[in-house]
Amino acid sequence: MENFSSKLLQAAVEEFSRLPGIGRKTALRLVLHLLRQDSDTIERFSGSIVNLHQNVVYCSSCHNISDRELCDICSSPRRDRSLICVVEDIRDVIAIENTGQYHGLYHVLGGIISPMDGIGPSDLNIDSLISRIEKQEDTGEVILALSTTMEGDTTNFYLYRKISPFNIKVSVIARGIAIGDELEYADEVTLGRSIIHRTEYDKPSIR
Amino acid sequence: MENFSSKLLQAAVEEFSRLPGIGRKTALRLVLHLLRQDSDTIERFSGSIVNLHQNVVYCSSCHNISDRELCDICSSPRRDRSLICVVEDIRDVIAIENTGQYHGLYHVLGGIISPMDGIGPSDLNIDSLISRIEKQEDTGEVILALSTTMEGDTTNFYLYRKISPFNIKVSVIARGIAIGDELEYADEVTLGRSIIHRTEYDKPSIR
Repeated sequence: MENFSSKLLQAAVEEFSRLPGIGRKTALRLVLHLLRQDSDTIERFSGSIVNLHQNVVYCSSCHNISDRELCDICSSPRRDRSLICVVEDIRDVIAIENTGQYHGLYHVLGGIISPMDGIGPSDLNIDSLISRIEKQEDTGEVILALSTTMEGDTTNFYLYRKISPFNIKVSVIARGIAIGDELEYADEVTLGRSIIHRTEYDKPSIR
Repeated sequence: MENFSSKLLQAAVEEFSRLPGIGRKTALRLVLHLLRQDSDTIERFSGSIVNLHQNVVYCSSCHNISDRELCDICSSPRRDRSLICVVEDIRDVIAIENTGQYHGLYHVLGGIISPMDGIGPSDLNIDSLISRIEKQEDTGEVILALSTTMEGDTTNFYLYRKISPFNIKVSVIARGIAIGDELEYADEVTLGRSIIHRTEYDKPSIR
């Protein structure tokens, strides 16, 4: 434990070092940086997180973070309402949105089934997904975009069994060699799958 | 720029990504972590930095961060008042305190002379160092513990010239091969200095 000459400094450093991935040295650097800012900046910084925490709303349909009862994506008339992409958390929504390749809706599970961490299906937003499929008659496909871990695979299978009675297409995102990756460094399972699930050669159009 | 579904989330992520060394992905991770905490944790987190910013005091003698007019180190009767260790900022005080090897006083300059960044001697706590030396008759040695950069060397030389009229010993911290470092990877200047400033072999006591 460091010798801080100020209890106030120590308290602030302790709060910052509770953040994930922030050690005590980094916490001290961040706190001393903030200390050099003016009062307005400090108010804006601390206010932003209090404001978010107090006023944040989760979309009643997809559980994405929102400022309203129905999020921008769920309420947009330009989104393809026949597609629901199931993701683990909000960061995945942002990551997929940033690709610009997906124009359907989302469903945020809020985690994946992980018996080791005591997370079962009832802890996740699975019931609301099923009732969405029941109510939304235009749902044509559910895309499972979860992690490629044992927990992800378990959750995929659980969801598949829940959805299969509805006669809806269930797909998973493609697994394979990342663009820019060298083949020799890919793990065997990924490389194997990428051969099994090979796609037709998409020849570049000649301009 | 990411597509955030919430303006509140976006505002908080922007505030966090202004911190040094925190990119937008890390900022999002930190904000989502805080969002999962309860209100008390959020209040404590944001309160700690506001409280520090509003109530922090800098020691009137050494400019170290403090909760009182005179910091714990300057007011401690157990510290050796004949030694003043000059450092660049508060982090250096904490780093030296953590070694447990120094029991004198400090003087925090608040930076080093850097014409490139427009920082001159008048921007630093140099006048107060000189008046401390004038007033505190028991000062026997000033230890310069600044960075080994051109700016650090410039500041060392400036301070040396200011202090030399007082007939006080001026020393600099030892430069050399770090403990655990391999000789072949040391830069030539450090290795050269470590040979010039060699110390007598301190044979381990036989127990």
